[in-house]
Amino acid sequence: SYGYFGKETPEVVRLMFCNVSGCLTDGKIFISASGEEMVSVNTRDATGLSMLQKEQVEVGFLSEDPIDSTLLKKIADRMKCKVEKVGKEPLNDLQQIVKDKKLDWKDVAFMGFDHADVKCLNLAGLSAVPGDAPDVASKAAKHICQCSGGSGAVREFVERILRQKRMAKSQREQ
Amino acid sequence: SYGYFGKETPEVVRLMFCNVSGCLTDGKIFISASGEEMVSVNTRDATGLSMLQKEQVEVGFLSEDPIDSTLLKKIADRMKCKVEKVGKEPLNDLQQIVKDKKLDWKDVAFMGFDHADVKCLNLAGLSAVPGDAPDVASKAAKHICQCSGGSGAVREFVERILRQKRMAKSQREQ
Amino acid sequence: SYGYFGKETPEVVRLMFCNVSGCLTDGKIFISASGEEMVSVNTRDATGLSMLQKEQVEVGFLSEDPIDSTLLKKIADRMKCKVEKVGKEPLNDLQQIVKDKKLDWKDVAFMGFDHADVKCLNLAGLSAVPGDAPDVASKAAKHICQCSGGSGAVREFVERILRQKRMAKSQREQ
Amino acid sequence: SYGYFGKETPEVVRLMFCNVSGCLTDGKIFISASGEEMVSVNTRDATGLSMLQKEQVEVGFLSEDPIDSTLLKKIADRMKCKVEKVGKEPLNDLQQIVKDKKLDWKDVAFMGFDHADVKCLNLAGLSAVPGDAPDVASKAAKHICQCSGGSGAVREFVERILRQKRMAKSQREQ
Repeated sequence: SYGYFGKETPEVVRLMFCNVSGCLTDGKIFISASGEEMVSVNTRDATGLSMLQKEQVEVGFLSEDPIDSTLLKKIADRMKCKVEKVGKEPLNDLQQIVKDKKLDWKDVAFMGFDHADVKCLNLAGLSAVPGDAPDVASKAAKHICQCSGGSGAVREFVERILRQKRMAKSQREQ
Repeated sequence: SYGYFGKETPEVVRLMFCNVSGCLTDGKIFISASGEEMVSVNTRDATGLSMLQKEQVEVGFLSEDPIDSTLLKKIADRMKCKVEKVGKEPLNDLQQIVKDKKLDWKDVAFMGFDHADVKCLNLAGLSAVPGDAPDVASKAAKHICQCSGGSGAVREFVERILRQKRMAKSQREQ
Repeated sequence: SYGYFGKETPEVVRLMFCNVSGCLTDGKIFISASGEEMVSVNTRDATGLSMLQKEQVEVGFLSEDPIDSTLLKKIADRMKCKVEKVGKEPLNDLQQIVKDKKLDWKDVAFMGFDHADVKCLNLAGLSAVPGDAPDVASKAAKHICQCSGGSGAVREFVERILRQKRMAKSQREQ
Repeated sequence: SYGYFGKETPEVVRLMFCNVSGCLTDGKIFISASGEEMVSVNTRDATGLSMLQKEQVEVGFLSEDPIDSTLLKKIADRMKCKVEKVGKEPLNDLQQIVKDKKLDWKDVAFMGFDHADVKCLNLAGLSAVPGDAPDVASKAAKHICQCSGGSGAVREFVERILRQKRMAKSQREQ
């Protein structure tokens, strides 16, 4: 879509999908002999997600993740995000969610990490991978973060989305 | 305040406020399926805080923190520091504490990390952020540490405060 | 073995042996006062092993490892890999396993980390160590990964094995 | 002591003292809301200590450490090392232990990390700090490791001690 002065109006993101393992976490899964599993999230990324929610952008984590669903739910609750039920091929399930919300892929921001995310990384209006993502995902993303997963990559992508929203808003008001 | 030879007498810090998440920790919050949360602090920073306490500088952690209050209290007890009750805008609450202690903001050292800390970073006599803090906080701080949070940033700031105290003392004795 | 055009047909790996401590993990063993031990594995390496298994390459972890057998078994189950019972000198035991499977050392990929792995690193058709392995193992390996242990070294070696399998296949089809 | 050809015969280390926090660990202390504390040690350093023990060098950890004594004992047992009871000034207590073993400080290797270790770092025949140790300790040590604490510093120092023992042995046999 082109703005009044022929300048391309940046996409206005209304919905963000994000992988937990490798994006919100550094990819490490801690396993103990007693079977307890643990991951780490980062306070700067948590602050980033709340900055996004203050701008009425909904955030959903993908359920298809190496960490188990109880732990995933705990993280989602802590970050006031939803867990979107997806299968091995997230695209089909997310397509339906985007449609149900009367949105289009150009209104969607997607952060992925590995093979399973390639199609969504190609389709989303704004897509990114952490700086340390495997090549297969980096090649499909519109933006490669400087920060690694679990160390600010989500915050970096959020700040990019919010910059874009401010630009679109100022162009609309010209 | 200017010393006898026109040299600016460095601030003599009497009170330090410090964020736990992102400054004393590396920002990582470990979450397990059973709901147990864990963070890591660093032995060099713990030694730094005790160096400061030996020089009669009181240290307070800010209660407004992503980690829950039980964990925060545990860390404060371990480091023989207080937890200062503050809201979303720490400045108002800290202002009152500084006043109650008959001190001024120039007697205060403040270590912050993100949006919520910007006003205090601007006001405090000596202020710093870890080397890996988000830009919004780095721009407001008087000093950006080389070390990252949870890996020596607090120790680095403490050594800077103690150097300043020694300089002020030697100028007073000239 | 030389292919039709005199090009050396790369080894076709059918079996991979891999150390857990230092290769699949970053070498860190977390110990708590209550005696609970914990290690971390990485989602990108887990995805790598499943890529290998999809290509009918069997993966075995070595039982001779600093972490205790319960934890080792838990990791192996999670990654759908076997734990191969070996002694202080893994070569003797692995030799028998390779023979039982009617394979040869040239069909074997081996990822090692320290002293105990030197002989296998020399013998295996394809051998590698993580980028941060001690010198004694790096000198014996055919390939030194760029990534460190627990941060993509296993994924890097898997992608090298799969590239080699594709090359061998295309040469066979010429 | 000078060897037959006037070459200085390197010290033959018979006893090593080592700090746990900051040398064997990366300095991080994990604290959970339930009060459980955890640290990480590294498999390459564990292998290093066992290399040393195979050469009849006794290894003792210092009891004066930020981590609690139960956890310290657990780590010492796992590494088949002793915990040496020392106070805030380790030198006095270690002096007595060295004397009881009819040794001299030149027969002792010492790995330290912070203020409390400075005197021992100066006195020991062979002394080292991890690459990321605070300046106060680095200035007192004979050797600054390239590796950081908890990531190979102990292994690096062990390999230096063993090289020195081999040199002394070959000079004695000339």
